[in-house]
Amino acid sequence: MTDVRNMLPAADAALLDRLVRTLPPGTVLTGDAISPRYQEDRRDRCSAKPLFVLRPSSTVEMAAALAACHAYRQPVVVQGGRTGLSGAHRVLEGEAVLSLERFTALGQIDPDSATIEAQAGVPLQLVQEAASRAGLMFGVDIGSRGSATIGGNIATNAGGIRVMRYGMFRAQVAGLEAVLADGTVLTSMKHVEKDNTGPDLAQLFVGSEGVLGVVTRARLRLHPQPVVEANAFLALPSAEAALDLLRRLRKAMGGMLSAFEIMLPEAYHGVCGHLQITPPLCTKAQVYVLAEIQAGPLALTAQDVFETALMTAIEENCVLDAVVSQSRREFQALWDMRDGCADFVRTLPNVANGDISVPVGRVPSFLRESQAALLAIDPGTVFLGFGHLGDGNLHYVFQTTRKEPATEQLLAMVAAYGGSVSAEHGIGMDKKPWLHLSRSPAEIATMRALKTALDPRLILNRRRVFDLPEGLQGQ
Amino acid sequence: MTDVRNMLPAADAALLDRLVRTLPPGTVLTGDAISPRYQEDRRDRCSAKPLFVLRPSSTVEMAAALAACHAYRQPVVVQGGRTGLSGAHRVLEGEAVLSLERFTALGQIDPDSATIEAQAGVPLQLVQEAASRAGLMFGVDIGSRGSATIGGNIATNAGGIRVMRYGMFRAQVAGLEAVLADGTVLTSMKHVEKDNTGPDLAQLFVGSEGVLGVVTRARLRLHPQPVVEANAFLALPSAEAALDLLRRLRKAMGGMLSAFEIMLPEAYHGVCGHLQITPPLCTKAQVYVLAEIQAGPLALTAQDVFETALMTAIEENCVLDAVVSQSRREFQALWDMRDGCADFVRTLPNVANGDISVPVGRVPSFLRESQAALLAIDPGTVFLGFGHLGDGNLHYVFQTTRKEPATEQLLAMVAAYGGSVSAEHGIGMDKKPWLHLSRSPAEIATMRALKTALDPRLILNRRRVFDLPEGLQGQ
Repeated sequence: MTDVRNMLPAADAALLDRLVRTLPPGTVLTGDAISPRYQEDRRDRCSAKPLFVLRPSSTVEMAAALAACHAYRQPVVVQGGRTGLSGAHRVLEGEAVLSLERFTALGQIDPDSATIEAQAGVPLQLVQEAASRAGLMFGVDIGSRGSATIGGNIATNAGGIRVMRYGMFRAQVAGLEAVLADGTVLTSMKHVEKDNTGPDLAQLFVGSEGVLGVVTRARLRLHPQPVVEANAFLALPSAEAALDLLRRLRKAMGGMLSAFEIMLPEAYHGVCGHLQITPPLCTKAQVYVLAEIQAGPLALTAQDVFETALMTAIEENCVLDAVVSQSRREFQALWDMRDGCADFVRTLPNVANGDISVPVGRVPSFLRESQAALLAIDPGTVFLGFGHLGDGNLHYVFQTTRKEPATEQLLAMVAAYGGSVSAEHGIGMDKKPWLHLSRSPAEIATMRALKTALDPRLILNRRRVFDLPEGLQGQ
Repeated sequence: MTDVRNMLPAADAALLDRLVRTLPPGTVLTGDAISPRYQEDRRDRCSAKPLFVLRPSSTVEMAAALAACHAYRQPVVVQGGRTGLSGAHRVLEGEAVLSLERFTALGQIDPDSATIEAQAGVPLQLVQEAASRAGLMFGVDIGSRGSATIGGNIATNAGGIRVMRYGMFRAQVAGLEAVLADGTVLTSMKHVEKDNTGPDLAQLFVGSEGVLGVVTRARLRLHPQPVVEANAFLALPSAEAALDLLRRLRKAMGGMLSAFEIMLPEAYHGVCGHLQITPPLCTKAQVYVLAEIQAGPLALTAQDVFETALMTAIEENCVLDAVVSQSRREFQALWDMRDGCADFVRTLPNVANGDISVPVGRVPSFLRESQAALLAIDPGTVFLGFGHLGDGNLHYVFQTTRKEPATEQLLAMVAAYGGSVSAEHGIGMDKKPWLHLSRSPAEIATMRALKTALDPRLILNRRRVFDLPEGLQGQ
C-alpha cells in the first residue's frame, strides 16, 4: 500500500519546535515515547510508525495543533478508539497521529432538550450509561461500545442494531463542534432544536471519516427509556419467511419493533460454539432471527401482543420455532449471542466480509442469487452472514479460498440491487476500490471539491475515502 | 434593496437561443408570457420582473437549463411554492426564475422502507394525503401545506408543530437528488437506510436555501399513523407554569407528546376574533397552550393518562383551566385556531415578527426580559407571540411603532440566550443583517467556501443567506 508520494521525510524540526512550544507538555510524543497502540488495527493490516503523535486536550489546543500542521503541510491521521473496520485510522508513511484520547469530558444531561454533551474521545458506553442513570437511553448501540468513541462514531455515522427505530448516529447529533485543517473552529452547539440560519455545517462532518475536519465535541440526543423490553429468537424456513415476519411484526407492533437481526445457520451454530453456550433453539432452519421490542409506559400489553404475533406466525408456518425471553437475564443472553458473531467470525480462516445493504424487500432474492454466484466461483464457500435485516444491512461474511473474485462479484451484485457497498463501516483505506459502485463520478467529484475547499493543503486523513487526482498536492 | 452591481443587461440572446433550442416548447417563458405570480411574495416586498422564466419538467431538463445559465453566467433564483417568509425566492434585478412547478410527480409508497418518492414541486399536503391513504403519516406539518412544496420544504428545512416528536424536515429525508449550478446531477435515492460511503452530500442541500444546488426530488420517510390522537387547550398563569406543564406531560406521556404550542393572550383573543369563533376558554390567563398527544395501537389508555395528567396539573395550580377535545371535530377546531394565528397577525399594522428559538428551559425568563426591553423602547408595544414551546421556537410577533430598534434589541437578546435568529424561516434576503448573531465568522466563511466550491460562478440564489465579498464575481 505504500506509495512513493507518501514517503515523506522525517518530521520537520521547525514544525516540531512550534508544536512543542505552543502545546502543553505531554501533548507531543516523538520517538520511543510513541506507544505501539497508535499502530493497532482491528483488521491486522500493516500500519506505519507515526512521525509523531499529537494529543491535544482542548479545542484551543486542537486548533493550534492543526494550524501548525497546516502551515507545514504535515499530513495527519485522526484517531479515536481505533475500532474502525475500514482502516481509516491506519497510519500511512509520513503521517502524524492526531489522537482524541484526551477529549474525555462528558457533560450533564439537559432534561428539557434531553441531550448530553460529550467530547469526541468519550467511549460510547459511557454515554449509554449516563443516559441510563438519568432514566433515559441512547439510541445507538454497537458491539465495540466500550472502546469506540463518540468522535469516531460521528465521523463514521455508526449504525448498529436499533437503526430501524432510532436512526443512524447522524440522527443522534443535535449539535457539533469540528476543527478544520487550518485550525478554524466551527461550533454549532446551541441548545435549540431549530436553527435554520443557512446550511447546517455539522452535517458535513457526520460520516466524513475525518477527511473534512476533526470532530471535537457533540451534543447528543437521548430518548425515553423503554418500560417494556422483550426479545425473541426464532427459527425460520427461509429468508422470505423472515421478511414476512418483519412485515407482520411491524404491523402488530408499529414503531415498537426496535431490532430485527438475522443469522444464517453457520453463524448461529458457530457463535454458540465460540461462546460455549447452549443454543437457544435446536430446530434446524434456514434462517434465525433475533427480534426486539421496546415499549413505553402506556403499552404494558406490548409483550403479550408480541407473543401473540409470534404465535400466529408459528401457526401460519412463517416461523418454525421460537424462544421468547422471560427474564432480564434471558433477554441479555440472546443479545450476547448476537454480539458475539463479530468476534466469532474473526477466529475463522479465509473469511471475506461484506458490510452491505440492499433494499429490505429484496434481501431474500439477493441472498439466493448472491449465494449461487459465490458458489459458482468457489463450490466450497461457507456462508456465515448475520446482520440487521430490519434495515437491509447484512454483514455478509463467508469463507472462501477465492476471496478477491468472490468479493468483486458480491459487491457488483450489491450495486446492481441498488444497495450500498459499505452500509456501516465507511470506506476508509480498504474499501476505496469499490466506492464507485455506490457513488457516481459526480458524487465523487463533489466530495473532492468539498475536500479541497475545506482542507486546501490536503493534510487531513488524505487518501481515505477517495484519492485525489495525481499531481494535486494541495495549495 | 437594488444594487447597481445587480443591474444586469437584458437576457443574453445567445443564452436564450440555446435554452429555447435545448428545452421543450413551453419551458422558457419571456416577455408578456411571464405571469405576475413569479413576483409574488408573502411579505409583499418589491420583486423585480424576471429576465425570463425556466420551467423544466425533468432532471435532464433541469441539468440542461442550469448548464446553459452557468455557461453564460446568468444568475437564477429558484422558486417552489413561494411561501417562504425570508424572501429567498424574491427576484432581484437581472435574475431569471428557475421554477420547480412542473416537478409534480409523486411516486408509490414503498411499504418495507416506509418511504415515498416525491418530485420537488409536489405540495406538502399531497404527500400528507398519500401517506394517510396508506395508513401512514408524514411527520412535518406547517400552515402553508397546500402551496409550500417538498423542494422548498427541504431547501428551508421546514419545521412546524410536531418537531418535538418527528424532527425537522431533515429527519424526513431518506434520499435526495439535487442539481449543481453547472448542471451536475447528484443522486442519492437508494432504498437503503444505511449507506456509509463517504460524506452524505444530500445533507448539504437540506436548509441551504438554494445557494448550493437545486433539489429536484426526494425520498421521504413516513411514520405509523397514530391510533389515538387527542389535544387540549389550556389556560396557564405564567410561562413558568407552561414549562412546568411541558415537563409533566413529557414525564407522563413520554414520546407520545407530539405538540406543545404556546399563545400569548393577545394572539389567542385576536385569532378567535379573526376566525369569528367562540374562544374555547374564557379564563383570563397569561399564557395559553395547545398540547397534542399521538399514541399507537397498544396505548389505548393514552387519552385517559393525558386527561389525568392535565387534571393533576389543574389541582396543583399549574393550569388554570382546560378544554380537552372530545371529538375529531373539536380536535380539528383547536388546530384550526392555532393555524389561524399566522394569517391573523398579517392583518395587523406595525407588526414585527421574530422567528426565534431559545433553549426551552429559558423561555420564561427570555419572555420576561425581552418584553421589558421592548416596552422600554416603545411603552405601547403589544405582544402577540405564539409558537412551538416544545422545541423552544417562538413566533415572536409584536406591534410597535419602533420596529427597527425593537427588532435589533430582540435578536441581540436571542443571541445572548444562545438561541437562533431564524428558527424555521431561513435567512433568505431579509434576515442577512442578523446572520452574524447566530453564526460565527468562521461558520460564515465556511458557507462561502462551500458556495464557491459548488457554484464557482455564483449563479444560484446569489445574495441569499450571505453576501460574498465585494469584487468576488465568480470564476
